[in-house]
Amino acid sequence: MEFTSAHRLDDGVLEREFTLGEIPGTLWTPQTPGSSPAPLILMAHNNGLPKSDARLKGRARYCAAAGYAVASIDAAGCGDRPRSAADDRARAEMRRAVQAGEPVDDIFESVVGPLVAKAAPDWLTTLDALLALPELGEPGGPGGPAELGVPVGYSGWTALGIRLAATEPRIKAAGLFAGGFVPRAQRDEARQVTIPLLLLLQWDDEGNPRDRALDLFDAFGSEEKTLHANLGGHTGTPWFEAEDGTRFFDRHLKPAGAADSTI
Amino acid sequence: MEFTSAHRLDDGVLEREFTLGEIPGTLWTPQTPGSSPAPLILMAHNNGLPKSDARLKGRARYCAAAGYAVASIDAAGCGDRPRSAADDRARAEMRRAVQAGEPVDDIFESVVGPLVAKAAPDWLTTLDALLALPELGEPGGPGGPAELGVPVGYSGWTALGIRLAATEPRIKAAGLFAGGFVPRAQRDEARQVTIPLLLLLQWDDEGNPRDRALDLFDAFGSEEKTLHANLGGHTGTPWFEAEDGTRFFDRHLKPAGAADSTI
Repeated sequence: MEFTSAHRLDDGVLEREFTLGEIPGTLWTPQTPGSSPAPLILMAHNNGLPKSDARLKGRARYCAAAGYAVASIDAAGCGDRPRSAADDRARAEMRRAVQAGEPVDDIFESVVGPLVAKAAPDWLTTLDALLALPELGEPGGPGGPAELGVPVGYSGWTALGIRLAATEPRIKAAGLFAGGFVPRAQRDEARQVTIPLLLLLQWDDEGNPRDRALDLFDAFGSEEKTLHANLGGHTGTPWFEAEDGTRFFDRHLKPAGAADSTI
Repeated sequence: MEFTSAHRLDDGVLEREFTLGEIPGTLWTPQTPGSSPAPLILMAHNNGLPKSDARLKGRARYCAAAGYAVASIDAAGCGDRPRSAADDRARAEMRRAVQAGEPVDDIFESVVGPLVAKAAPDWLTTLDALLALPELGEPGGPGGPAELGVPVGYSGWTALGIRLAATEPRIKAAGLFAGGFVPRAQRDEARQVTIPLLLLLQWDDEGNPRDRALDLFDAFGSEEKTLHANLGGHTGTPWFEAEDGTRFFDRHLKPAGAADSTI
């Protein structure tokens, strides 16, 4: 992992670009190191948006300012990474079909299924490299006791989050963002996800049918899962959900989480 | 309104019992008065629970410690207020039918429809009396400019909240608690509710079918409405929802609410 730029934001967050082989990424770290390493959030987005997108950066910076190390990458086939002309055509066709209200299951499967399968290894490679950084590893640096390892959360792209949460035990909590429409493999894998979840749903999401999001929420194997639904379309998630997401991670990734009780 | 007892809790909240005609109530007020009056939350519960129930008091005290005046009453037919033997039999029959998984629409309608209709006037009488208290009225006491009136929210029993929110313009935001099963009149009135809403849903609520809660959420006329769903039965709402509820009221009832923007 090679850092290629670094600058300090107004709120003290350190924003660094990095490359890891072919993977370009950004790491945000909070200003004030605590007595233990900041928990790490893997913040992923698909949907053709690059990791440099202003809204994604806004979410990452907010989360870092709240005391988290936050990493975002353009995984294989995502963001600014090279895509074949055939991939571009398939994505354009999928968007057209969604907008026209046509059935999109088959084309969605052909586009997003392989995208998740190719993106997941890049994220795991990145996770390995991040946890090997002295400032993100165990207290005292590499070689510290494993039970003091940095807590890891996942935030963003639902289908990839399911894949990672179902297969990677270092991920302890996941916030899944405005997507109920996932490939078949992830619909099956949802039952194997058992970590605490916060699933965001936009009630009138033009690309993610409401019923599928509700079915997906029902399918997760987690004992603690929360659904937040808000009015509006895919990009209409209100700002307070960023605050709620941080509080969700606070409960599960920071030592002094709230007690497990009911109102 | 006559206060019959007062004591100061550990967190500085003042808890006072009152009577208002036949209506018994409790008022919690925060320790530190701000430059403007604390917003007022009407906290209602039905379901046979008296206002002295420990869980209800816990929610009220939490909310008061967060800077709100909170009032709870036993409205007509609710809590410890007298009920006829026929009312008691009908409630017992409703509980039996719910537990047996039998259709309950007709008996629910006959029990809860009149209960809402009778409870609402008691709450409005209480609201008038509370806003006439010097410590809860306009800054500077009665006669201050109306536009500086204390902001009022509602929290709790869903069916009553719909009735009050649809008919009482002083109520500016409502948190509705774990109830999608409401009388027919309130199903219709939901469309007339236009204030910001937070609707809590327990995903496996034995007495409130999930589909009805989702239909109810869809029906509300509000432009800002948020659904929070959590796993578990009717009494399993996790504690962090009390925190989320307070933050919802902070956005809508306190002057420095969050900006209206998206992530």
